[in-house]
Formats: sequence, C-alpha cells, structure tokens
Amino acid sequence: MALNDILPVTRNEEGIAAVLGTLKQRFGDRFQTGRAIREQHAHTTTYIQVQPPDGVVFPETAQEVQEVVRTCAAHRVPVIAFGVGTSLEGHVNAPGGGVSLDTSRMNRIIAVSAEDLDCTVEPGVTREELNRHLRDTGLFFPIDPGANATLGGMAATRASGTNAVRYGTMRENVLSLTAVMADGELITTGKRAKKSSAGYDLTRLIVGSEGTLGIITSLTLKLHGIPQAISGGVCPFPTLEAASQAVIATIQMGVPVARIELVNSLQMRALKNYSKLDYPESPCLFVEFHGSEASVAEQAETFGAIAEENGGGPFLWTSQAEERDRLWKARHQAYWASLTLRPGAKGLSTDVCVPISRLAECVAETEADIAEMGLVAPIVGHAGDGNFHTLCLMNQDDPAEVALVEKFVARLNERAIRMDGTCTGEHGIGQGKVGFMRAEHGLGVEVMRRIKRALDPDNILNPGKILPMEA
Amino acid sequence: MALNDILPVTRNEEGIAAVLGTLKQRFGDRFQTGRAIREQHAHTTTYIQVQPPDGVVFPETAQEVQEVVRTCAAHRVPVIAFGVGTSLEGHVNAPGGGVSLDTSRMNRIIAVSAEDLDCTVEPGVTREELNRHLRDTGLFFPIDPGANATLGGMAATRASGTNAVRYGTMRENVLSLTAVMADGELITTGKRAKKSSAGYDLTRLIVGSEGTLGIITSLTLKLHGIPQAISGGVCPFPTLEAASQAVIATIQMGVPVARIELVNSLQMRALKNYSKLDYPESPCLFVEFHGSEASVAEQAETFGAIAEENGGGPFLWTSQAEERDRLWKARHQAYWASLTLRPGAKGLSTDVCVPISRLAECVAETEADIAEMGLVAPIVGHAGDGNFHTLCLMNQDDPAEVALVEKFVARLNERAIRMDGTCTGEHGIGQGKVGFMRAEHGLGVEVMRRIKRALDPDNILNPGKILPMEA
Repeated sequence: MALNDILPVTRNEEGIAAVLGTLKQRFGDRFQTGRAIREQHAHTTTYIQVQPPDGVVFPETAQEVQEVVRTCAAHRVPVIAFGVGTSLEGHVNAPGGGVSLDTSRMNRIIAVSAEDLDCTVEPGVTREELNRHLRDTGLFFPIDPGANATLGGMAATRASGTNAVRYGTMRENVLSLTAVMADGELITTGKRAKKSSAGYDLTRLIVGSEGTLGIITSLTLKLHGIPQAISGGVCPFPTLEAASQAVIATIQMGVPVARIELVNSLQMRALKNYSKLDYPESPCLFVEFHGSEASVAEQAETFGAIAEENGGGPFLWTSQAEERDRLWKARHQAYWASLTLRPGAKGLSTDVCVPISRLAECVAETEADIAEMGLVAPIVGHAGDGNFHTLCLMNQDDPAEVALVEKFVARLNERAIRMDGTCTGEHGIGQGKVGFMRAEHGLGVEVMRRIKRALDPDNILNPGKILPMEA
Repeated sequence: MALNDILPVTRNEEGIAAVLGTLKQRFGDRFQTGRAIREQHAHTTTYIQVQPPDGVVFPETAQEVQEVVRTCAAHRVPVIAFGVGTSLEGHVNAPGGGVSLDTSRMNRIIAVSAEDLDCTVEPGVTREELNRHLRDTGLFFPIDPGANATLGGMAATRASGTNAVRYGTMRENVLSLTAVMADGELITTGKRAKKSSAGYDLTRLIVGSEGTLGIITSLTLKLHGIPQAISGGVCPFPTLEAASQAVIATIQMGVPVARIELVNSLQMRALKNYSKLDYPESPCLFVEFHGSEASVAEQAETFGAIAEENGGGPFLWTSQAEERDRLWKARHQAYWASLTLRPGAKGLSTDVCVPISRLAECVAETEADIAEMGLVAPIVGHAGDGNFHTLCLMNQDDPAEVALVEKFVARLNERAIRMDGTCTGEHGIGQGKVGFMRAEHGLGVEVMRRIKRALDPDNILNPGKILPMEA
C-alpha cells in the first residue's frame, strides 16, 4: 500500500533548534511556532495523518524566501512551501519537521500584459483573486481545480480541472517562473516569449515538482480571452459506455468543447437530492462550449447529434447564464452532495487518468469493484481528458474500513497504470501515492532521483514527497 | 560571438579506436566509417564548420541503441543522435569525434489510436511519412517546421513552425517517449493518459534537450482531426506596426487562427518575383483558419474586420484548396525566393522570439539594423507566436562579410533577450547559440549543467551542445 513505502525522514533536532532561533530573530511575528498554526499548516484535507512542521514563516519577497532557504540549508533542515492547504495527498506534511514556508503574504499581481495574454503573479495569489483582478480586461485564467487554491500551489502540483480539455493544465499555462533552489539561488526559468527552444525546459521541470526541487516565488501565466458566448447543458446516456463513446466522437470531430464531465448514476442521485436537478439517475455528461454566438450554437448542435447517435439525449442546451450557472454549481457541489449519501462519513478522492479509449472500461471495472467491496463511492470525471475521481465515503475511525478503502484505491491505481494511464491526473503524488511511482515510472524514478540529488543534495526541499526512498 | 564560447571537446583517441572496433564487429555493414558518409552526418545546412564523427551506426531497435550507448559509455566516447540532418545550428557536429547514431532505420509507425488521438512512432519517421500513413484516419500531425524532419529530431530540438499558434509546438504534442540514457538504461517518460501529475516531467525534460540527456527511441504524439474546412488568404498592411496590431487583436479576440505569418516588404518582393504573387510590396499577413464551414467563414470575416480597423486590407480570402495551396506554397518557398535577391549567396537564418507586444518594435529595429549594416536579409515570422526569421544572404567565403553577419546576429539575439524574448523560438541552441545561453538564462544555466552532470557524468551524449562549458 501507498504509505508503507515512505521511509521516515529523520529529524535533525540540533539543526531545527538553530533554525528556529535564527528565524525567530529575523522574522519576529512573521515566524510562528504555536501548535494550532503548525497543525493547520500540515492539514491535508485527507485521511493522511498530520505531521506538523516546527515553525511557520511568512516571507514577503523572493529575497526573504532566499534567506529562509539559506538558513535551512546551512543546518540541513526541511523547508516546505505552503499555499492554502487544499492538497489532497499530504503534500504539506513535515515528516522530518522543519519549516513551513507560507506564501500568503506573497500575493501581489506584478504585471498584466493584455497584449501578450499573460500576467506575472506571486505564488500566494489565488485563482479567484487573479480572475477578480482581471475582470475588466476581457481576459481570464481558465484553470479551475474546484478549490480556490493558490497559483503557486497549483503550479507545484500541475493542477488542472474541468476545463483542461480545452485550455490545458498548469503545464501548458505557466510560461515561466522564478524559484529559489535548495542552495538559496534565485533562478528564472524562461522569458515571456510564447515558445522557446533554448535549452532544458526548467519551467516544466519545476511545475509538478511539488516543492521538492525549488520554491516558486513568481509565475508568468498565460491568459485567455473571456468567450463572447457560452452554451451548455446536461445530456443523459443509457450506459457509461455510450457516454464515453460520445466523448470520444466529440473530441475526434474537433469540437472545441470547453468542459465535458462524466457523472455516474450514483453521483447523479446525490446531485438530484442535493441540488434538486431534474435529470434521470443514469450516466450524464455535463458539457460547455465557448466561442462566438454562432459557434457555441453550432458546437451544441453537433454535440447533440453525436449524443443521439450514441443513444443519449435529449440534450437540452442553453446559452442563458442563469440556467448554466445552476448546472455547474450543482456539478461543483458534487463533493458535498456525495457526503449526503452517507451522513457522518468522510470522503477520500481518487484521481486516475487513462487514455479515453479505456475510460468506459476503467470506470465500469471500478464501479464493479465498488459494488463487490460494498463501498459507497460516486464517480465524476473530466471525461475529455480520461480523468475521473471516485469519492470513497468512509468512517475514518474504523481501521478495517480504512484498510478496505486503501485496498480499493490500490486496485484502482494499478488498474489505471495497467491501462497505460496514471495514478494521478491532477492531484499530485505527495505522500499518498508515493507507493505507485515505481509501478508507473519504472526506471524513470531513478532518473527523477538523480535530478533531485543533483539539485537538492541534502534533501531539504519538501522531503518525503514524490520519490520513494531507497531501501 | 557565439562560437567562441564553446571550448573544444577533447578527443579520446584510445577510446574511439576501441569503440570503432567493437561496433564494426557487432554491426558489420550497419557501421560505416567512410569520409563522405561521416561528413554528411555532420552536415548542418549552416555556416558552421563541419566536424565529422569517426563512424556512423544504423541501429534498428531500442536494444541496439542501448548496445551502442553502452559501448560508447564504456570507453567514454561521444554518441550523437542523427535524424535527417536539417538542423540549422550544428546540432549533429562531432567536436570530439565519436559515433553518429543514425535513426533512419528506426522508422516504424508502432501504433495509431484514432480513439485517443495519438500514435507511437520510432524516431526516424519523418513528419510527412507519418501524415501519409494517417491519411485515411481523418487525423493529422500538425507540427510543420518546413523541412521534412524526423519526429525524433523535431522532439529533440522542440521544433514548431507555421501552425504552432493553434496546435502548439513539440513541447505540447509529445505525450511521452522512450529514451536510452547515458548509462544505457531505457526509460519511458510517461503513459498515454492526456495529463498526469505523477512526478517530474521527464517528457518535457528530454524534449528540447538536443540529444544531450538521452537518445529518443520512440515517441507518443498527439494527433488532431483534419479540419472539415479551411479558409485563408493574404492581407497587406501599410506598416509592420499595423500588421502586428492586427495580430495582437486577432489573438486577443480568441479567433483560433491556425496560421498567421508576417512577411516584410523585402520578402514580399522576393515572393512576387519568385512565385508571381500579385500583392503590393508592403508588409503582409498570410492567414489560415481551420474549423467547420461556418466557423472558418466567421473567422475570416472577423479577421478581415480587424485588419480594416488597423488600416490593412483588402483581405481577400478563399476556402478553395487550389488558391490556398498556391499562397502557402509561395510562403514555404520564402527561402528559395530570398536567394534570388542575391544570386550565389548562402542564407543564414536567425530565430528570435519575443512577446507579441514587442514584435513590431523588434522587427523594426532589426530592419533598421539590416539597412544600416548594408545586409540583404528578408524577414518572415510566425507572428502569432512572436517568432521571426531573418535570412541573411552572404558570401560565406568572405570572412569580413561573415563577421558582419555574426555581429548582426549577436545584436539581434541580444535585442530579443532584452525584450524578454529568446534567441531561439524553434531552431534550438546546438553549437550556434551556445554563446547566448548565459545572457538568456543566467543562473538557470548552472541548474541545466547540474542536470546534465547528474544524467551524463562523462559527457558522452552530444557533447559541446546547448551548455557553455565552464572556464
């Protein structure tokens, strides 16, 4: 199982004591060591046990981040970047103690270039703050993982969400970034040009590295024009297979769908009860189209025809904002709606992603597993990308139930990897999925380890995450 | 200047002799040491001096690539991957001798998944071969650098071309790859899932690494649906500034333009003479739109209105394949057309890329420089990406003229970097641009160097490329 593979990161008590003293003196009230704040900074919104850091520092500039990292480096003490703590996989835990570096005071929007469709922000800016700031420019930042995460955190975990099928993930939307490396040096990974062939792609190396290779101190992000018109709706299908075939046909025909979300029967039941949606309890696709008035109408008509060919429908679509918002609000409340299926239970979200040709098969096998194991676990998926989540509702205080869910998760992750997919489409590895890295990457893990050692030889940047330690 | 920064990679005569013996015995006729074939494998289609390898090997499988690399590794002898030799920056030169690894016999198309819009190919497949193979599937691979390069070579240099503005570059279109690393191990960098947050992005690390970190032995590529309809045309503008503003407005309004190419007055004169195009000798945009019949008409109309607002036009567009093909054939003949401007001269192509807000300024300053220095150098650009090429026509046998062109190129590269751009949008660094890496990347170069040392400690993979050597 996942967690057993992580060897403990040992505590360096002497170093930690020295760092605490130095940072207290240097940062005053901007360095905190109270239990509550430390625990809050290791909070992971998952079942993974909290491992608090020894202190929390609130730098305000890249130079202050350099100071913190240099202090930690001098004493070989871990330093763990923190956004707002919406990670689902224990990314901000401190298994060897050390310092949580909270980026919330680095929340300036440094520049917006409407002409270049880009902006530069500090890592503590959240995506909603950025979009509020952009409101009058006609532009927006599309990546929407659901939670109002920081952009630094989203880059660090290579986040995406419902509209990645059209706009890409953080991988495609970070143009360049600045980061403090383990030795305290500040690097810039690229320029603002839209493309470059100049050397190794350090931007993409840091994006998704979960704070283990460098601490992001600013990001230059791609922006997109707010679409002139939006249409969308919900389309029921008799089977998962039919819904998946409609997704494949839609993508293949080049319909530039902005969102295409698969919701299984159990999740539809939860949504109906919670959000009073009037749809059958059968698999449904929630879709949205962006473009000109004419284009969104054409896209919706094309999709409707594809749905019908695959036995689905009726597809009732609208370009009225109010009705559309109601649908997507319901979709985004899937988590809360799911909890009503088993009051008192907590949810564990899985995150596999497979080639879309395997999506129906993977979801069907997973549903069968859920039924066989007696779990309550509704499914929603970013179907256009082959990514889906099961929310396993469980009593976290019952070790047998936790063990059962862990077994289910392991089987699901292994199934996805066997289908040429990944154990995580967008949540990241953190601590929770370290145990699947070898199955997914084979010798690639050794390459990653060599890179980690080359850039962080003392393993001070977020140790115990992503990489399984050597035996 | 560029080339002065490269310290010579020293020849390991003893190792080379041993490797030649071993490879001859193992590969027989598939290992060649004749002068002509060696020189052809260091041919660079540029002014950079040919530095031939000591032998050329033609492996047929990834396992044979592993054997070659292991043989070279055992004797610390360079091994340089070779596609078809369309590099413009000396990528395939062998400054320390060693073995050219020609991938032309690794030209199988391993799999096409129409449902997943992807395919897996060996590195020696050219983009035209792939598109011929795909003809009946309704899909195509869009990246088009002009030359009929191999897909392995295109990935290694992070190539792109005219339609990157819509479809992205090799960075966005390689889903995963397999590569033989310097120790001979074969790794797979990812699965076929469309997105993943599972660990470091080894795919993007190898893409653009120019054979210095690993030798690509297969690639999984994203495919796209052949558009139902295509429209396009040529639009003249009174000034470069006006044309650039039209590009910016087009992108900002979210028009999903497939190609938008800037051609300056001198280049237009060459095209008119060479291809008998009936357009004014003023800056022009060549544009193309992909989509449904209705969508491409709407896009063309929108672009026409934008052009008019910016003082351009008339914009005569067509969705007739014949007329469109004539225009793009003319655009793609820009190189040959340019040579007629100065018969007998050879061309050196530059490749800067800047934020599009700076494009007009960068092109105008470059035109002024060309005039001031008395060069003949027409300009074409992938304007939607801020990337443009000047083709410097020169007499390569006149050292004074070569020096003048080198001075021009240095000024241009420095100008682009100063404008927050890059010295290479799509050609790569090779040997030709090593001297600009520090100016562009600063301390990032040290991070790249650490990665190189961690993955190739003996510097056997394409030594002397990308990274300036330490003093």
